[in-house]
Amino acid sequence: MKTIAIVGTFDSKGEEFLFLKKEIEKNNIRTITIDIGIKGPAFFTPDIQAKEVAAYAGKDIDELLNQKKPALCMEAEAEGIQILMKKLVAEHRIDGMIGMGGGQGSSVLRCAVSVLPVGMPKMIVSTMAMAGGKLFPGVNDTYLINSIVDFAGLNDILVSVIENAAGAICGMVRQEKQPKMCKGPKIAASMFGKTTPCVEQVRKILEQDGYEFYPFHANGMGGQAMEDMITTGFFDGVADITTVELLQDLIIPGTGCSQRVEAAGKIGIPQIVVPGAMDNINVFDGMKNQFPGRRFKKHNAEIWTMRSNVEENCKVGKILADKLNLAKGKTVLMLPLRGLSMISGDGMELNDREADEALFRTLKENVSDKIEIVEIDAHINDPKFAEALCKQIENIVPKNRE
Amino acid sequence: MKTIAIVGTFDSKGEEFLFLKKEIEKNNIRTITIDIGIKGPAFFTPDIQAKEVAAYAGKDIDELLNQKKPALCMEAEAEGIQILMKKLVAEHRIDGMIGMGGGQGSSVLRCAVSVLPVGMPKMIVSTMAMAGGKLFPGVNDTYLINSIVDFAGLNDILVSVIENAAGAICGMVRQEKQPKMCKGPKIAASMFGKTTPCVEQVRKILEQDGYEFYPFHANGMGGQAMEDMITTGFFDGVADITTVELLQDLIIPGTGCSQRVEAAGKIGIPQIVVPGAMDNINVFDGMKNQFPGRRFKKHNAEIWTMRSNVEENCKVGKILADKLNLAKGKTVLMLPLRGLSMISGDGMELNDREADEALFRTLKENVSDKIEIVEIDAHINDPKFAEALCKQIENIVPKNRE
Repeated sequence: MKTIAIVGTFDSKGEEFLFLKKEIEKNNIRTITIDIGIKGPAFFTPDIQAKEVAAYAGKDIDELLNQKKPALCMEAEAEGIQILMKKLVAEHRIDGMIGMGGGQGSSVLRCAVSVLPVGMPKMIVSTMAMAGGKLFPGVNDTYLINSIVDFAGLNDILVSVIENAAGAICGMVRQEKQPKMCKGPKIAASMFGKTTPCVEQVRKILEQDGYEFYPFHANGMGGQAMEDMITTGFFDGVADITTVELLQDLIIPGTGCSQRVEAAGKIGIPQIVVPGAMDNINVFDGMKNQFPGRRFKKHNAEIWTMRSNVEENCKVGKILADKLNLAKGKTVLMLPLRGLSMISGDGMELNDREADEALFRTLKENVSDKIEIVEIDAHINDPKFAEALCKQIENIVPKNRE
Repeated sequence: MKTIAIVGTFDSKGEEFLFLKKEIEKNNIRTITIDIGIKGPAFFTPDIQAKEVAAYAGKDIDELLNQKKPALCMEAEAEGIQILMKKLVAEHRIDGMIGMGGGQGSSVLRCAVSVLPVGMPKMIVSTMAMAGGKLFPGVNDTYLINSIVDFAGLNDILVSVIENAAGAICGMVRQEKQPKMCKGPKIAASMFGKTTPCVEQVRKILEQDGYEFYPFHANGMGGQAMEDMITTGFFDGVADITTVELLQDLIIPGTGCSQRVEAAGKIGIPQIVVPGAMDNINVFDGMKNQFPGRRFKKHNAEIWTMRSNVEENCKVGKILADKLNLAKGKTVLMLPLRGLSMISGDGMELNDREADEALFRTLKENVSDKIEIVEIDAHINDPKFAEALCKQIENIVPKNRE
């Protein structure tokens, strides 16, 4: 029989949680109810009390409450729930987790799901779900479900939301899963429309060679997902072909991903890094007039491609170099000297050799000796570059390591 | 036997969709496969071809392709899929829908789910899911699922994502639902921490009176959800007690909701509108220095409450008045003259009578004659105000209308 952990504040949202529990159990699935509410007694007797959750973190809730420190209480719950969830997973006592919460509760739930293995069904029903990755960073494969209405009594909308959520989490833990078989070393790669020919070619070669290939879309969110997945230790190496999210975030903060090109270096797995697509960023139509005198190309109805200039490329080159220098593992910086994406290179619409060279120069001047630099006299989307890149991968992520 | 519609580009993502179809069907659930791909032949024979989808909108895909107008093709698919989905729902041929897509595909999928009834299981697996409400407005109860990796072949991560998604959508359509019984007129209400005493009191009175009460959290997303739900025709009236999202969005664009206080007026249901909590906005800690010389109060570790000033209140008063003047249904503007939220009023920390009065004055000067203005000499959180508000509700949303 499968078991689902139910986590939340059973004091303020007790009625809703009791209904959720019944909806799950009618699928013939067991529940473990875990209270994280500190404002009053639970509406029903939980399997694990809020007090016990805090105790996992060595904290005494009653003492903190007596000191009138509600913020510290929530911190104790957040810390304790992580230890508890890890324990439940290690002891094979749960097959999935579901939580519901408003602003405060959601932040503890975020901690709870963060320690669950990738692939294990996990769900947060929240009034804040539509904020997406902005408020729920790092919850890669957590189902963020919009509660639509506030948790303030069971009305028809909330009943329907909870019924569906119960059905979904039960369906997920029930779904028979294929055994995942490791067929070869796992390589993460970053891609974008404008570097797709390169990434597709790399994929073809590496898959033929017996590697497993995982492309992430460098749209700000995909890059963040890649960093998060790298951190879990899932990958054996990284082909970071499209690092444009750093440039995007530098020029228009919040639209790219400033945390890119960090995880591989931190956990010390080998990486190939290319300043791919660092010759342009996306600019929404409404923001175009904030960049007078710049070179643009229409991407679609809402988005313009803007050519990066010398100044921006020097800045982003320094940022990237600094990140590479922190890497603990083998790091190769590959420079496609004849152009960084589909929009720039000999004869291409937004070609700017001076800006490209400023980027290459800044990178070369700022990376430390332990970074290997490989310059290829080809455009990034030239098969020659992809072939050279795959040779490097084969060097630093040997196939027989598995 | 239940049936799930599967929608997506079966040309570029055919392998992934075929796997999804099998994963759903192994739950003994039927599928209807609907292709919206226009770049090439489908990977497997769909139940409904992309050509047929466009034909529902009266468009000829082959002709558009010959004219080399891919953007128009996608528009034709977007238009056609809405007509098709409505038809499938009307004929009771589907119990839920699941789609998968990248950037382009997701925008067509967004159109598809937008016409499905609230409560019907619907899911979009997307590389863009973590953008949440920013990129997927109006998909209130759609499950936005992060694909984590790009759709470019079935690797272990994508297999796991699709297995879970198939399990979840099957579990949702399988879950036995309570019959929803209309117990009385349905009232939507907007709430916020700082107006909670008022909203809770209103709730108590209205529920005793036989109304059904639906509180939405005015955090930018909740307000948008309320507007969307009002548009579906679900509610009989609105107690718009907390309109602060207009002020929030005016002062820091993108953090509130500029579309508020529109839907009820547009569809012509009766509404009570209060400028609740329009005496403050939330400011993230990092942005506080952008507002020198302003009055602040700490809300929590990350957020400050900032008092609104005369200038802002005049502006937002005009915005709100203009919206009310467009309302087609009965509209009552209620003004709690002694304060608009927990932070301002006699003896409260951020009290500012001058700013409050500027707001009241602007509203009164700018609303048209058909708007009824009711001034109450009480603070918004004084039970006296809640009681007066409920009397107005009972007037404009009679109980015997059901």
